[in-house]
Amino acid sequence: MKTVNFDHLACSPLLPEVREAMLPYLSQDMGNPLSKHVFGEKPGEALERARDEVAQLINANPEEIIFTSCGSESNNLAIKGIAEAHARKGKHIIASPIEHHSVLHPLKRLERQGYEVSWLTVDREGRIDPEEVTDLMRDDTALITVTSASNEIGTLEPIKAIGRIAREKKIILHTDAAASAGSVPIDVKDSNVDLVSLAANPFYGPLGVGALFIRKGIRVSPLIEGGIQERGLRAGTHNISGIVGMGAAAKIAHEKLPERRDHLLSLRDNLIAGVLEQVTDCFLTGHPVERLPGHASFCIQFIEGESILIHLSFLGIAGTSGSTCSSEALKVSHVLDAIGIDAVSAQGSVVFTLGIDNTDEDLELLLAELPPIVEKLRKMSPLAAKHGT
Amino acid sequence: MKTVNFDHLACSPLLPEVREAMLPYLSQDMGNPLSKHVFGEKPGEALERARDEVAQLINANPEEIIFTSCGSESNNLAIKGIAEAHARKGKHIIASPIEHHSVLHPLKRLERQGYEVSWLTVDREGRIDPEEVTDLMRDDTALITVTSASNEIGTLEPIKAIGRIAREKKIILHTDAAASAGSVPIDVKDSNVDLVSLAANPFYGPLGVGALFIRKGIRVSPLIEGGIQERGLRAGTHNISGIVGMGAAAKIAHEKLPERRDHLLSLRDNLIAGVLEQVTDCFLTGHPVERLPGHASFCIQFIEGESILIHLSFLGIAGTSGSTCSSEALKVSHVLDAIGIDAVSAQGSVVFTLGIDNTDEDLELLLAELPPIVEKLRKMSPLAAKHGT
Repeated sequence: MKTVNFDHLACSPLLPEVREAMLPYLSQDMGNPLSKHVFGEKPGEALERARDEVAQLINANPEEIIFTSCGSESNNLAIKGIAEAHARKGKHIIASPIEHHSVLHPLKRLERQGYEVSWLTVDREGRIDPEEVTDLMRDDTALITVTSASNEIGTLEPIKAIGRIAREKKIILHTDAAASAGSVPIDVKDSNVDLVSLAANPFYGPLGVGALFIRKGIRVSPLIEGGIQERGLRAGTHNISGIVGMGAAAKIAHEKLPERRDHLLSLRDNLIAGVLEQVTDCFLTGHPVERLPGHASFCIQFIEGESILIHLSFLGIAGTSGSTCSSEALKVSHVLDAIGIDAVSAQGSVVFTLGIDNTDEDLELLLAELPPIVEKLRKMSPLAAKHGT
Repeated sequence: MKTVNFDHLACSPLLPEVREAMLPYLSQDMGNPLSKHVFGEKPGEALERARDEVAQLINANPEEIIFTSCGSESNNLAIKGIAEAHARKGKHIIASPIEHHSVLHPLKRLERQGYEVSWLTVDREGRIDPEEVTDLMRDDTALITVTSASNEIGTLEPIKAIGRIAREKKIILHTDAAASAGSVPIDVKDSNVDLVSLAANPFYGPLGVGALFIRKGIRVSPLIEGGIQERGLRAGTHNISGIVGMGAAAKIAHEKLPERRDHLLSLRDNLIAGVLEQVTDCFLTGHPVERLPGHASFCIQFIEGESILIHLSFLGIAGTSGSTCSSEALKVSHVLDAIGIDAVSAQGSVVFTLGIDNTDEDLELLLAELPPIVEKLRKMSPLAAKHGT
């Protein structure tokens, strides 16, 4: 069966060049990058080269990059690490309500520990208003955290504008760019953001490797502590093959970003137009233009998104109903709730995330299969009966 | 140059069979184990197979295994996770002073947060006395943590005896088995230990993958939170190739443990006898018998261990002066300090950790090169001059 991946934010294919770069670090004579003897030399150099490559993707300095095991770890390190290290300045945090769970859960924990979180509002299209950030800032605000782009609705946030405001008041700004890095340009020198969470797989690196940009001079408490790795900010033996893969993927992403973006934009806009035209009682979620180049998300009403996805999966087509990290939970998405979508419509959420390997034929296949699946499900759906369609 | 690895606890070679098992999970069409569609099937099954393989290595149930990114993360999760989840029972912890830094640093942080740690004593050979554990136990003791074997001096601790005592008083017991799993049998059903930290590389799996055994029914707060992965105890996209590698390595380690152990024991005892015989002013650290099968550690007096290792490295021979995670720090080892070795002797610390790839020829090479290096360095050493040798 031909398979078509429209769930790239859960898993993008590993580039053959990246795999090639990784293989020497899965060989028998590979050492620990920290060892000072002969076995440590090659991996030690590779580690620093990868750091440099990841830094270049976001215009950072190499020493500002800390390798982690995933975007979720980066988010946990950023949120808890800043909260702890800057508790003396204050225990107030400003956050968007459409953050990834790996930002939200640490924030909820901090609330239980006596921190205060001011939650921003988002409009119907998922956008934060920078002016509201200004309104919420206080003398004891230690951190602002706003995602670069929601992986559920794709909306790009005005990080640069928020960065200007944060910098003026000397408040630390973190952004989760796991979903956006590689397809949207990120320039930490230009954008005044102080911490940026990254994951390798969305830009065609390996699964289970991430990084955190920490601007020089910003203090962070470690989450995994013990060793001297990563300047004491992240203990633990390096996943050196994974890190090398992240570096190789970052280098290619940096070079090919405009080309990839154009490809994704064209596919995305055709996908959105096609679905809205051919599927009845269906609307786009998130912003129509200011959204991730490869992101198309919809609410297909009166049926369950999960049922649609199961039918598509039987045909070899992969999509998701929300964040992969929470899709087993079957709760209404906090993101859809935040943008004001009612619980019934939210049940019909489907998210298609495109990749560089997707083609026009993939799109045609989806657009041929989706409408009849929807019609078939509506005939059987109690939701549809209740709503009289 | 022929290279000889006597630093296996920093980096063991990846077994070719393990590499082969990993490669399919570094292919282009590999999905996220969490995805419910067609791309998630194969990695989802592989994840659970690996969990089963790791469980079998220590006679656990698969659902008691949580995958992490390294032994350090497992230690951090165990210590902080138990302390937080059981704070209501009490804020008292009993710990050995010869733990890895990834246990010690979390304990030091807990002390700053109001927890009380009772530090056990160790004898000259690095052994804990189980009776002292009994003496230190209180009604508010939430956790006992004692390493299975120190990676610096190799001494095996009486975990089973401590487990009996802990179980009787219903106190949770954690052990860091990162250095011992794979060369020493571990049976969690027999030993009454409640949490066991594991790392894949010491048993010839990939670098940067680990696991934590958490006995069924024991509550632990997550360290990396957000997603539903690993029963909500460890969020973050799985490093699926690494996890598959850990499983494959665990399976082989389980099958070959007795054979590997015999090989290591024979090499180790020859190495210890040879060094003590041929190097003057040199003594073994740790226990002469109750020690890791592949572990030989010495204090070579009146010179610096680091200098010896640099000379050996020039000849392609790798060793270490202590824990790789801290060897850049050049401080006197807390482990050597705890067993009562004076600071000057501790400077001469060298640690050789053997692996299944080591041969009698490797040993001969080391025993030929080491004594002349020591003599040469002593001639130039201010420490030697001061001590009149």
